[in-house]
Amino acid sequence: MLKVAALVSRDGTLLQALIDGCKVGEIQAEIALVICNANSDRPLQRAAQAGISAIVIRHQDYPDRETFERELHRCLQEHGIDFVCLIQFNRLLTPWFVEQWRDRLINCHPSLLPAFKGWYTCSRALNAGVKFAGCTVHFVRPPMDEGPIIIQAVVPVLLEDTPATLRGRILKVEKRCFAQALQWIAAGRVRIENERVFVEGVDAPSQVLLNPCAE
Amino acid sequence: MLKVAALVSRDGTLLQALIDGCKVGEIQAEIALVICNANSDRPLQRAAQAGISAIVIRHQDYPDRETFERELHRCLQEHGIDFVCLIQFNRLLTPWFVEQWRDRLINCHPSLLPAFKGWYTCSRALNAGVKFAGCTVHFVRPPMDEGPIIIQAVVPVLLEDTPATLRGRILKVEKRCFAQALQWIAAGRVRIENERVFVEGVDAPSQVLLNPCAE
Repeated sequence: MLKVAALVSRDGTLLQALIDGCKVGEIQAEIALVICNANSDRPLQRAAQAGISAIVIRHQDYPDRETFERELHRCLQEHGIDFVCLIQFNRLLTPWFVEQWRDRLINCHPSLLPAFKGWYTCSRALNAGVKFAGCTVHFVRPPMDEGPIIIQAVVPVLLEDTPATLRGRILKVEKRCFAQALQWIAAGRVRIENERVFVEGVDAPSQVLLNPCAE
Repeated sequence: MLKVAALVSRDGTLLQALIDGCKVGEIQAEIALVICNANSDRPLQRAAQAGISAIVIRHQDYPDRETFERELHRCLQEHGIDFVCLIQFNRLLTPWFVEQWRDRLINCHPSLLPAFKGWYTCSRALNAGVKFAGCTVHFVRPPMDEGPIIIQAVVPVLLEDTPATLRGRILKVEKRCFAQALQWIAAGRVRIENERVFVEGVDAPSQVLLNPCAE
């Protein structure tokens, strides 16, 4: 069974969704380690409740990114981790770390990449007046929010949306997409060729969506 | 009835779709003038077949953008045009022209803006490995491919897509979106507030789409 580590910065129900998915067997992987880089109790509580090892490695306690990351890497190796999931993890990782975990490191970003890389994606999407938003689960490469895309989900933006309501709608599909991507990986169905992702035996949707709906 | 001019650079079935939509009354507007800025016979033939005035104003025949645009503007006024549609029009318009036609000038771009502004959107989308593409109909503002969004459509990207197959799939929704946007405008149902578009009495879709489909 794939031994997975979750790198988190703060509480997120996304972590809980992955823990639950593994527990009930929807994701045939083991979340074996939770590493938190900030003083955030909730992820540690979630790990403890699920009987998962949890460690705090605060980046502020290290003189530079690389020292911090070497400690991360050492911990991951010590726990026999095969695969790493960034779950609302707020540090940009150096090329050194990313290369150590090349093709074994995924991230979920709350936008339809390549649109709205970086922070405050929902506010920026609303300010841009886009009619669709979404999320992207991708393998990590050194540039922020880049890398081969495994799955994306599209959600409509509603006229009455605030950043919070849009964020909530996206979070729901993030949970589905992250769990699905991890399950495909755990089942050995994902391969990367020329930096594009192929998943064995899956289909694309046949629908189109218009927003506002055409009449 | 709203008197509409179409500015085109080359043949497009998009122009035909608008002409047909007006003819059958799906769009309650009149395409009163087709202006082509290049030596392209097909749009002129389409106009002639529909009994629409057509003019060639080649940008190469003018010393600079502004002189070219003053001639465009003069023609539009001479024909009593209320509203201008850019239909695969390949010239960036100056702020002067855009301001003359502010909120009376729309464009359709074959991407989910703000992603993939500019040219070769389908090749670039495929190279980026995105799972969704689409189109955007928006009011024109001076920066290229920016401005308040009226409607967007999302289509899935398929693994076997080439730029041509993806372009074809997007073109289908461009026809629907452009016709729908123009009809809403013709019916007086569109207003812009703080650079966001509101269409009276329309809904957003309730679905979400995942690509690949979750299992």
